[in-house]
Amino acid sequence: MRVGFIGVGTMGGPMAANLIRAGHALTVYDVVPAAMEALVGQGARAAGSPREAAAAGETVISMLPASRHVVAAMFGPDGAIEGLRPGATLIDMSTIDPGTTRRVAEAVGAKGARMLDAPVSGSSTGATAGTLTIMVGGDLATLNGQRDLLGAMGTNVIHCGPIGMGETVKLANNLVSGVTMAAVAEAFTLGVKAGADPRILFEVMSKSSANCWSLQTRPPVAGLVPTSPADHDFAPGFMTELMHKDLGLILAAGEEFKVPLAMTALARQLYAMTIAQGHGRKDFSAVAKMLESFTSGND
Amino acid sequence: MRVGFIGVGTMGGPMAANLIRAGHALTVYDVVPAAMEALVGQGARAAGSPREAAAAGETVISMLPASRHVVAAMFGPDGAIEGLRPGATLIDMSTIDPGTTRRVAEAVGAKGARMLDAPVSGSSTGATAGTLTIMVGGDLATLNGQRDLLGAMGTNVIHCGPIGMGETVKLANNLVSGVTMAAVAEAFTLGVKAGADPRILFEVMSKSSANCWSLQTRPPVAGLVPTSPADHDFAPGFMTELMHKDLGLILAAGEEFKVPLAMTALARQLYAMTIAQGHGRKDFSAVAKMLESFTSGND
Amino acid sequence: MRVGFIGVGTMGGPMAANLIRAGHALTVYDVVPAAMEALVGQGARAAGSPREAAAAGETVISMLPASRHVVAAMFGPDGAIEGLRPGATLIDMSTIDPGTTRRVAEAVGAKGARMLDAPVSGSSTGATAGTLTIMVGGDLATLNGQRDLLGAMGTNVIHCGPIGMGETVKLANNLVSGVTMAAVAEAFTLGVKAGADPRILFEVMSKSSANCWSLQTRPPVAGLVPTSPADHDFAPGFMTELMHKDLGLILAAGEEFKVPLAMTALARQLYAMTIAQGHGRKDFSAVAKMLESFTSGND
Amino acid sequence: MRVGFIGVGTMGGPMAANLIRAGHALTVYDVVPAAMEALVGQGARAAGSPREAAAAGETVISMLPASRHVVAAMFGPDGAIEGLRPGATLIDMSTIDPGTTRRVAEAVGAKGARMLDAPVSGSSTGATAGTLTIMVGGDLATLNGQRDLLGAMGTNVIHCGPIGMGETVKLANNLVSGVTMAAVAEAFTLGVKAGADPRILFEVMSKSSANCWSLQTRPPVAGLVPTSPADHDFAPGFMTELMHKDLGLILAAGEEFKVPLAMTALARQLYAMTIAQGHGRKDFSAVAKMLESFTSGND
Repeated sequence: MRVGFIGVGTMGGPMAANLIRAGHALTVYDVVPAAMEALVGQGARAAGSPREAAAAGETVISMLPASRHVVAAMFGPDGAIEGLRPGATLIDMSTIDPGTTRRVAEAVGAKGARMLDAPVSGSSTGATAGTLTIMVGGDLATLNGQRDLLGAMGTNVIHCGPIGMGETVKLANNLVSGVTMAAVAEAFTLGVKAGADPRILFEVMSKSSANCWSLQTRPPVAGLVPTSPADHDFAPGFMTELMHKDLGLILAAGEEFKVPLAMTALARQLYAMTIAQGHGRKDFSAVAKMLESFTSGND
Repeated sequence: MRVGFIGVGTMGGPMAANLIRAGHALTVYDVVPAAMEALVGQGARAAGSPREAAAAGETVISMLPASRHVVAAMFGPDGAIEGLRPGATLIDMSTIDPGTTRRVAEAVGAKGARMLDAPVSGSSTGATAGTLTIMVGGDLATLNGQRDLLGAMGTNVIHCGPIGMGETVKLANNLVSGVTMAAVAEAFTLGVKAGADPRILFEVMSKSSANCWSLQTRPPVAGLVPTSPADHDFAPGFMTELMHKDLGLILAAGEEFKVPLAMTALARQLYAMTIAQGHGRKDFSAVAKMLESFTSGND
Repeated sequence: MRVGFIGVGTMGGPMAANLIRAGHALTVYDVVPAAMEALVGQGARAAGSPREAAAAGETVISMLPASRHVVAAMFGPDGAIEGLRPGATLIDMSTIDPGTTRRVAEAVGAKGARMLDAPVSGSSTGATAGTLTIMVGGDLATLNGQRDLLGAMGTNVIHCGPIGMGETVKLANNLVSGVTMAAVAEAFTLGVKAGADPRILFEVMSKSSANCWSLQTRPPVAGLVPTSPADHDFAPGFMTELMHKDLGLILAAGEEFKVPLAMTALARQLYAMTIAQGHGRKDFSAVAKMLESFTSGND
Repeated sequence: MRVGFIGVGTMGGPMAANLIRAGHALTVYDVVPAAMEALVGQGARAAGSPREAAAAGETVISMLPASRHVVAAMFGPDGAIEGLRPGATLIDMSTIDPGTTRRVAEAVGAKGARMLDAPVSGSSTGATAGTLTIMVGGDLATLNGQRDLLGAMGTNVIHCGPIGMGETVKLANNLVSGVTMAAVAEAFTLGVKAGADPRILFEVMSKSSANCWSLQTRPPVAGLVPTSPADHDFAPGFMTELMHKDLGLILAAGEEFKVPLAMTALARQLYAMTIAQGHGRKDFSAVAKMLESFTSGND
């Protein structure tokens, strides 16, 4: 299958490589030339603009950091939409606000093309391993035509509803993981300061009502789970900056749909504090380091 | 074994019944005579004061709603401590603040008796089934002498450290479940308002980074999990009032150990809002009903 | 003086009328034709685009609701910047994010024109009366050349520093009034529910450490201050929606400058709750109505 | 007039001294002997217990740090209530929770004595100068009989309603000052980080909707107001610990009256963070130092 791929950085790079390995013919575009070159070495063709990458594919995939990058890559004379062939399918796999998704979908429809929104979870590890969870919004028939392609990048491909619902479900999911991680951080900071053994805290919480993905994958104290970021100086994993960004998208969605989100808003400020202390590019479980900074030396 | 049991209400009642069934000789006390009578019908003896109940047992168990009830039952001329035999063991299974636990432990020690703090999780269902998780603080040898007794009430008996650590670990655990439930409520309120199918939300979140005990046991939308309170008009389960109380104990512990707990403090106010709307005696997942009250009719 | 005026709605309309009354020759533009016609009846000329309005003035004023309207009015082939004469001065009086202000200033500079940012406080009442407080960022010499014009719209014209500082100071100011109003609402809701006479609350707080502009201008209980929105079914004044928008700009500035703003973030969610209950176009003191909705009937 | 005075520390000491200067005959009690001796040097008599101090006065005043100290001083065989003469008046000037006030009032009534609750604002400076604001709850006739005495300690004596209303009004007042100070701290931290001149911030905010007692008495940047704690290494003034304590009383009142107080709850955690950083005995405007700790070195 001929595929245009726009945005081949930390996430998009390994995803595109998996598509090449699966036998697809890729034309890639990125604002960073070095990112394209790595894939050219694996057999991809480099394009000079999003438009050119889009024109080269029956399917066009975009994987970009934020809404403004998607807007920049899609619209304008050199934008991907200008290059889309009639009947082609655009799959935007970026995590962006549902409003931007809808605006892109309208422009895609006006060109006689189809669109899916398909944000992922699983971080760069999952992108490399091809084990991402992919949340897809759009027409089911359109999705069915892309299952082979998506299956080369992820193991869970879930149809979430009409266009925009991939983003919506992803954001609802990340709301919970962002807030929950902050709760786990508060619980460990309090428990340890009060004299509890972190291993006991972890064991009891794992068996009881505190059990959650954040606890199991990234307990904020070293020595509990070997793969936890806390055991590796909080190397990500999923960066604090990205969680902060996602919680911002969630609050924007709350604003659009008039849903007050007080817990989300406060959690976002805790991640802002974590970033302000220099942990923006650490794993988001570093929110516990921020909390801990208050308790050291106040005995 | 001869056991004094103080506080035989919603939780203590079925726990005492399990001890009788296991062959122990119980002397029970409660401020509500009817609560004692039910157990007398099963073979227990009724005492006229906490002191009398305490005097009747080699082991004395208390299971009371809050710190002030524990203080009232323990101290004073008719209090349990006055009645304790030298060498007896007092097991306080109430969920209270660690400071009160320590004060009771000192008074118990002064009488030549021993103490364990052993709060539980599992709610009245677990109390009846004898499947509670019991978090124990105190001397290990003392705990080992009580394992038979505790095993008649719960399936998980976990030694959490020295006296007070049962309470500490329980509170750290409930911090996470209280905050996490509020996050799940925000996520479902937002997702559903934005048009997502709650079944899809549940499926994706169950497989991804939002997965947690609150999601699995009490998703806040009916039709997802048959045993969810949302499927039964939010009948508890674990009442909003109790979660509100526990979060208050957690904040008091945060104050004692100088650990700022912003997420906990805000979650507690969301449960206060839920109580103010009349859901104090509903399951704490009713926090989602409170959030939903903002979104109905604002389209 | 010949003045181009872009955006002549609720705020811009009476401001432009004051300029006409002061003898200036106005060319006005608005996306709503009726808004222009009202001023044409007072002697203004109507323009067909922001560009045309800009081309007609030595000074060009814009007064628009939000950053995206400023971007739309300034940039593009029909935008105001395209029409600016060399040596002209653009005064943007909109309340927007400092980042957009800087981007507009760069484009203005590239055309050989000058710029001031000059957001106001005082609401539509002050706009009509010509008693606005005007916070000005930009070169002092440029400001001095515009004092006559600004003096026709406001009584306090304060130079806040270089370009962007008008917006920055305005946002810092509104942060305090937004949070403070929410505090006054909590205090009255609690005090009245606990049985205090609102007149006593007002009297004591006015003389003590609770005294503030929000208390003096908009106590949230009727009968204390005749001009309070609470005495007029919470008619604005300053609308909840606008306070919600301003707190959003403040959080965006906090993000840009890495300053965590937890109180601001939470206050914004309280205003979101107020909007969700249907009070978006009421005065922002209606946050007290929202709080009160929790307490009615829970005795 | 013969007066018993219980609690003659930082606040009670100078208040008692003012009464002596006004010609009253004082019998004082404090758990710290040195505190009594200072007043004995000025003509007071020292008592051996609260009971003895109470027995010596037609009026008995208590000025204690927290509810638990009031409970300890009032009840029990050596407590003040035991010593009260029939017809005497007890004036509790401590800032405590309204529930404790009511319990004390009942016990006082049972002894045939009368009670006023009369918490103050104005800090130790006002206590020394005799310029406190005194908020009085209780019977008006009882208050009128004590106006001379109260007038020797404060300049504003305000009748706030029946017993307990002095405390209630005081707490509502401090809710606002506690939240408002945190808002002023956020505004200055943001404004200064964004490049604004603190003098301009202060000038504009003083004239606009941000104006408030916190801004005028304790702006958190040195060089604006000579008497501001910020100009004196944040020496109190009113200590962070006391604001933290008062916000705790306010939350307890919110719990009693089922009024959700999210802003108060979060502000309290910001003061907890400030205490955790070692500023508990600094002025509560040190909350700005805590916020600033996040922004230093993150450019």
